[in-house]
Amino acid sequence: MRVLVPYTAQNPKSRLDPPLSLTERQSFSLAMLCDVVDAICDAGHTPELLLSTPLDEDADGVDDRLADLPRTVDDRSLTAAVNAGLDRIGREEPELAVVMADLALATPTALQRLFAVGGDVAIAPGRGGGTNALVVRDPAFGVDYHGASYRDHRRLAETAGLAVGTVDSMRLATDVDEPTDLAEVLLHGRGRAAEWLRDAGFAVAVDGGRVGIDRS
Amino acid sequence: MRVLVPYTAQNPKSRLDPPLSLTERQSFSLAMLCDVVDAICDAGHTPELLLSTPLDEDADGVDDRLADLPRTVDDRSLTAAVNAGLDRIGREEPELAVVMADLALATPTALQRLFAVGGDVAIAPGRGGGTNALVVRDPAFGVDYHGASYRDHRRLAETAGLAVGTVDSMRLATDVDEPTDLAEVLLHGRGRAAEWLRDAGFAVAVDGGRVGIDRS
Repeated sequence: MRVLVPYTAQNPKSRLDPPLSLTERQSFSLAMLCDVVDAICDAGHTPELLLSTPLDEDADGVDDRLADLPRTVDDRSLTAAVNAGLDRIGREEPELAVVMADLALATPTALQRLFAVGGDVAIAPGRGGGTNALVVRDPAFGVDYHGASYRDHRRLAETAGLAVGTVDSMRLATDVDEPTDLAEVLLHGRGRAAEWLRDAGFAVAVDGGRVGIDRS
Repeated sequence: MRVLVPYTAQNPKSRLDPPLSLTERQSFSLAMLCDVVDAICDAGHTPELLLSTPLDEDADGVDDRLADLPRTVDDRSLTAAVNAGLDRIGREEPELAVVMADLALATPTALQRLFAVGGDVAIAPGRGGGTNALVVRDPAFGVDYHGASYRDHRRLAETAGLAVGTVDSMRLATDVDEPTDLAEVLLHGRGRAAEWLRDAGFAVAVDGGRVGIDRS
């Protein structure tokens, strides 16, 4: 199956500033993208980048594997660009998946669990009401990433008479948007994003309640 | 299998004030406890309350089902009380589970996935480094809930030469400690805790980024 991975190199992960500078956010977001691409490939599927601007193949963190991936450049909103991609369902593709590029904890097993969920639409809900990954098997379905998209996607599918399945995965529920999310990457990440954070001096900090991060 | 469910009625869920008063937190925490107990029973196992003080059987929210459960009262710290319970492993019980009382999204399926994980110790990591649920099958293992307990429990088990398994579950990773967690209950809860929040006027609020809560 083709798996669309939306990615923007323009001011990525803005809510991670602070603690990360723009250059660091660009480098860290590429590390997360690499982890997601690896997990998709290792799950036996084909990632396809959905970029807001052409990929800078000379940028630090863009290796040959990333540079060789099929890609589409679409400068419209995330919702519009993904829906343009989903238009291929029923014509060129029987099904398509969309997996966010900031799922730094994604593993092949977690993705395979999502891809094995039945239904016209299969959703991996994100923390805070988002839709972190989904599989679409019916051309009647379109996405709307604004607001509480998990709830909205369920309603849109149900209104269209489509069967919706979900996967219960902490790894797929964890998108990395805010500083507290970095602790999850340090605790559970197994790839380049976790390594990037450790190389940048980050460590898990314990100060009562849930853990946070420290930078040395 | 016996499943210990630690619960305290004394100033429960203190980080939920605001938006909840003490009386509301006591009532809401009982609703979450009921959901957890129901999920354990529906998964085919036997909940056993581990209480810091005797249960007030006349309290609003304590129904016959809860009042009839086997229970132990232990006023020591969570860690000491759970370890006293785990002392039964290898003598009275071949294995025991511990499931936190604030897992308002727990379902029988999610718990069954945890209980099916192999290893001497099976862990459901919580958001923010916690240990939300675990199964212990070796008397050499003890808990330490202070700090980043997920990481510490892995290390303790590995130091003791014990095999550790984990379950990847958003439902079991979501303990309800902070106001933003209430949005998860409203979005994904199927039991009394979600109903309690809706009856108390809470609804999901969308204001950019992740969703929050509003109260009418």
